[in-house]
Amino acid sequence: MKAALYHEYGGPEVLKYEDVDPIPLGRTDVLVKVRATSVNWFDIIGRKGDYRPNLRFPHIPGGDIAGEVAEIGEEVTNVKVGDPVVVYATVGCGHCESCRRGEPNVCLNYKYYGSALWGGYAQYATVRAQNLLPLYKGLDFAECAATNITFLTAWHKLARANIRAGEDILIHAVGSGIGLAALQIAKLHGLRVFGTASSDEKCQKGLELGADYMINYKKQNFREEIRNLTGKRGVDVVFEHIGADVWEDSVMSLTRFGRLVTCGASSGYRVSMNAAHIWHKQLSIIGSNHGTMNELATIVKLLEAKKLRPIIGAKLPLKEAAEAHRLAESRSIFGKIVLEPEHAD
Amino acid sequence: MKAALYHEYGGPEVLKYEDVDPIPLGRTDVLVKVRATSVNWFDIIGRKGDYRPNLRFPHIPGGDIAGEVAEIGEEVTNVKVGDPVVVYATVGCGHCESCRRGEPNVCLNYKYYGSALWGGYAQYATVRAQNLLPLYKGLDFAECAATNITFLTAWHKLARANIRAGEDILIHAVGSGIGLAALQIAKLHGLRVFGTASSDEKCQKGLELGADYMINYKKQNFREEIRNLTGKRGVDVVFEHIGADVWEDSVMSLTRFGRLVTCGASSGYRVSMNAAHIWHKQLSIIGSNHGTMNELATIVKLLEAKKLRPIIGAKLPLKEAAEAHRLAESRSIFGKIVLEPEHAD
Repeated sequence: MKAALYHEYGGPEVLKYEDVDPIPLGRTDVLVKVRATSVNWFDIIGRKGDYRPNLRFPHIPGGDIAGEVAEIGEEVTNVKVGDPVVVYATVGCGHCESCRRGEPNVCLNYKYYGSALWGGYAQYATVRAQNLLPLYKGLDFAECAATNITFLTAWHKLARANIRAGEDILIHAVGSGIGLAALQIAKLHGLRVFGTASSDEKCQKGLELGADYMINYKKQNFREEIRNLTGKRGVDVVFEHIGADVWEDSVMSLTRFGRLVTCGASSGYRVSMNAAHIWHKQLSIIGSNHGTMNELATIVKLLEAKKLRPIIGAKLPLKEAAEAHRLAESRSIFGKIVLEPEHAD
Repeated sequence: MKAALYHEYGGPEVLKYEDVDPIPLGRTDVLVKVRATSVNWFDIIGRKGDYRPNLRFPHIPGGDIAGEVAEIGEEVTNVKVGDPVVVYATVGCGHCESCRRGEPNVCLNYKYYGSALWGGYAQYATVRAQNLLPLYKGLDFAECAATNITFLTAWHKLARANIRAGEDILIHAVGSGIGLAALQIAKLHGLRVFGTASSDEKCQKGLELGADYMINYKKQNFREEIRNLTGKRGVDVVFEHIGADVWEDSVMSLTRFGRLVTCGASSGYRVSMNAAHIWHKQLSIIGSNHGTMNELATIVKLLEAKKLRPIIGAKLPLKEAAEAHRLAESRSIFGKIVLEPEHAD
């Protein structure tokens, strides 16, 4: 099969489009004919070598996989050849406390398709049957691939934050994949959304996509704006994925009983704060990592019902994976970049 | 009436035993004949002027009050003269979001008896009827005064942490008033308790009072000990009230889904950590402040049932309040220091 893979870490140019054999099927595996995959930041830092869980070269990236079942192992019972499916990216160890509670996303030794395991930048992907969810007929594979990781991560975070209709939420970097997902999910739950973005243009798009207020953080101090916009009260929830640069101002933007939920720190991992604010206001700081299989099923249901709408910024054929990574790194595309493997049919 | 009060901030010697008129009763107030009060750290930092919510001199400290109803305002219906009562220390504004949810402990403008309001270091205290809980006949006033603030604060913290039987908890400074309370409450809930203390003698007392393991933090690194004692897993809950000195090691002592609950920072308010641990392990950092009236009612019920047992280290007559503060500051007493006002009957 053809795949976009790399033999060494480096710039987008290390991504080669080459022939490679798929991983042989085990008894509980499924071979998925990949119809769409997408570019996640995770794929980029993996390719650069900034994150190195993959154990061998060549490596095939791609955590988002949507396609059709091409072949099944002899013990597989949940799907049959031809079924449209989406792949849950996390593979847990299966026996730790987190796996036993249905949260392989917090497994002691989890792996992702696209990192320690070969991913979806290929015509075919060998995945575990238990990681497959059936799609309804007619679901757009590109939309599904564009939704999977970002929407699941945002969904799980907002579930961890226990959001409720009528609450106020501050979503950082609404222009990012996860920020856009959070915006849609928060609106679906009936929250009032305050978003931040780095330009007036992105702020305008945020408003068009449903944000109630947008703050251009290059021009305005978001903490002061939140204070003004909420009559000094602050927000109930902060959706945080920036880290050091915004940490304490985010904590200070919370009202009493407020929850800051965090899943990443693109601006730096070391964060600090005055602990007194945490206890005086009875705040909570909550960590969240990826999401669960059941939550992905909910997202598929909401895609079918057209309640969630992925924003696709560009579609490229798989052989142009290197160009897709260049586009992603230039941050010139608003929305997800989808890659579509070429097939004869 | 006689009261132990001060006209200026300073050392224990500013506490004078003098005559002063009680605050006149309003329609919904109650005059409590104080039978016992106790020394809290709060009283000491207030007297020193390190914490200055009190608005005028002279000031009567004392947040813990237990006694009998001596007189009631004309609209008071929940108690009658002669009833034994305990006083809930927090007075909320009554109309903010926190007050409306029954949590005046997180009110925007709360006051405490003993800080902005005159407290219990007196023969009589004028308090709001709604802050009174009836005590069953025969309850020991000294035990009740010794339990109120520390046990309520510890109880609320552990409720915020949502503790469950079978879980492991690390309690910092088990020798402190709040640490001793947390130890008892955690054991009552069926947890396995790992405690820290500053001496082998205090560790021995911790074991006698029910701790499963004690760590002398002067000799051992608690994070390494927790790692060893739990087979690398870590604990489900950390009961934190020390702050800067132990913050990150406390976060690192948590297992996946672990909760650190904080209510104070005697070693410094500015805390820092690597945020990645929060999301990778799906940890929660939870703030807690004092407790609620209903929780105090539960504590009184558990005192009656002998399920909780205050540790009284010393009892002194109220006129020796200055000496009581000296003893508290010397940290030579294990357990609470109770003050008993003198009365003719």
